[in-house]
Amino acid sequence: MKLGAIEAGGTKFVLAVGNDQGELLEKEVIPTDPPEVTMPKVIAFFEGKGIERLGVGSFGPIDINKESATYGSLQKTPKTDWVDYPLGKELQDKLGVPVVLDTDVNVAAMSEAKWGNASDVDSCLYITVGTGIGAGAYMGGQTLKGLSHPEMGHILVRRHEKDDYEGGCPYHGDCLEGMAAGPHIEKRWGKAASELQELEEVWEIEAYYLAQALVNYIYIVSPERIVMGGGVMKQKQLFPLIRKKVLELLNGYVSSPSLTEETIDDYIVPPGLTDEAGVKGALYLAM
Amino acid sequence: MKLGAIEAGGTKFVLAVGNDQGELLEKEVIPTDPPEVTMPKVIAFFEGKGIERLGVGSFGPIDINKESATYGSLQKTPKTDWVDYPLGKELQDKLGVPVVLDTDVNVAAMSEAKWGNASDVDSCLYITVGTGIGAGAYMGGQTLKGLSHPEMGHILVRRHEKDDYEGGCPYHGDCLEGMAAGPHIEKRWGKAASELQELEEVWEIEAYYLAQALVNYIYIVSPERIVMGGGVMKQKQLFPLIRKKVLELLNGYVSSPSLTEETIDDYIVPPGLTDEAGVKGALYLAM
Repeated sequence: MKLGAIEAGGTKFVLAVGNDQGELLEKEVIPTDPPEVTMPKVIAFFEGKGIERLGVGSFGPIDINKESATYGSLQKTPKTDWVDYPLGKELQDKLGVPVVLDTDVNVAAMSEAKWGNASDVDSCLYITVGTGIGAGAYMGGQTLKGLSHPEMGHILVRRHEKDDYEGGCPYHGDCLEGMAAGPHIEKRWGKAASELQELEEVWEIEAYYLAQALVNYIYIVSPERIVMGGGVMKQKQLFPLIRKKVLELLNGYVSSPSLTEETIDDYIVPPGLTDEAGVKGALYLAM
Repeated sequence: MKLGAIEAGGTKFVLAVGNDQGELLEKEVIPTDPPEVTMPKVIAFFEGKGIERLGVGSFGPIDINKESATYGSLQKTPKTDWVDYPLGKELQDKLGVPVVLDTDVNVAAMSEAKWGNASDVDSCLYITVGTGIGAGAYMGGQTLKGLSHPEMGHILVRRHEKDDYEGGCPYHGDCLEGMAAGPHIEKRWGKAASELQELEEVWEIEAYYLAQALVNYIYIVSPERIVMGGGVMKQKQLFPLIRKKVLELLNGYVSSPSLTEETIDDYIVPPGLTDEAGVKGALYLAM
């Protein structure tokens, strides 16, 4: 059986045809332009390929509540051309196949749990730290969602005592994303992250915010692994700083063999899948 | 089919026999003394009643990972007589029936979702604010757990600007539980909560901490309803203060018809079940 998969990202769409064994057979990458430019290319890619279902991992916010009248519609995303765009309905109408949607980060969490760096455990939280901060979780055989999809990037964090950056989230000022997403590192220090590698304080402050987030995720959802991806996490010096701070903040409270100095390197890890995580997860949604 | 149910709480054990329709047929309440006093009474209650399975909602921390060698054992609980006590194994050995365990708060969340104030939606987060603070969630047809059970009471919160209480959590000082559990209201103000009802500042500060927790729970697990129980929540003036603060902190970021000034009273609610929530949830575990 042939299945379609889309990773709908903020900068690019990855389109693929795969089979019900989870294998990718054909792939194409197109830029994320306004819908009237991007969507005809998406439809053209899938037309005539005989797919029977389509899975989509999308940027958000997006309505992923199957019982909602606006299921599959983008919401008030900063990508203004896409606000309220009925992505799911449009794909279903044009391609005539059932469409299943989830968020890009939920799909990445599922993908890491199936084929990536969490394939040896049953649950996984995936956080991306880049232009924004988002996270998704795969727990008990399903992605985490309810009222809406999680927006884990916007949790409240405590300010680092040496940090006087005001915070840049348009909704919350100094929430996690407003303090720790890539653009805010750059605004705080006046330089791109890549030029700040040698400045210890930059990464100490960044690790403090990300460690607070991870600690709250551990207390609230208790994932068996945390995978950290996104542009900012390419600064590999962050991993040991974050791991150390997470253990300090937990202070031995959670009894688990995964949360010790000896084992934390295998608990907080980089992604195992790179370019294909999103689209493989989307394929899995269709399966 | 007859099933057994236990709500194992920090002050009392509720024991019940029910059927596979979720009806309670017989119930008994005994105090939580050390295991050598309490457990023989538990065994005696169930013996000869022909139960085929037993569900237990227990205080914690407790190992609820079915693949662990210590599944069903209490961990480092402040109730020192029970530390490392193999509750699940003991019940299984003595009664000769399969035992399924979960935390008291996970069971309460499930119970509220099945029969209580969240029975009209598919997911529910239950938080109890009393001697300690704990929360559980029921999402996608199962309770939330992974590495261990959640410990949502210990998340990091921001200090209220008028609050100089140092915080009383032995592990984390000024985490949520250390700032907002009942004993810390009393320590901060030097009087029992029941004598502080008229003092607005007490409840404003309390609501600030609890609202931060709810906002983080909403961002991280996105439950369709939040049920707030426990001794401190008997101070009904807290509900409107918490609801207002939650909306302020979210600042319109999560698009949901449940999170508006008009609808928030139906989103953050008191429990629908009172005394039987725990034991009915435990019965459901056995079903």
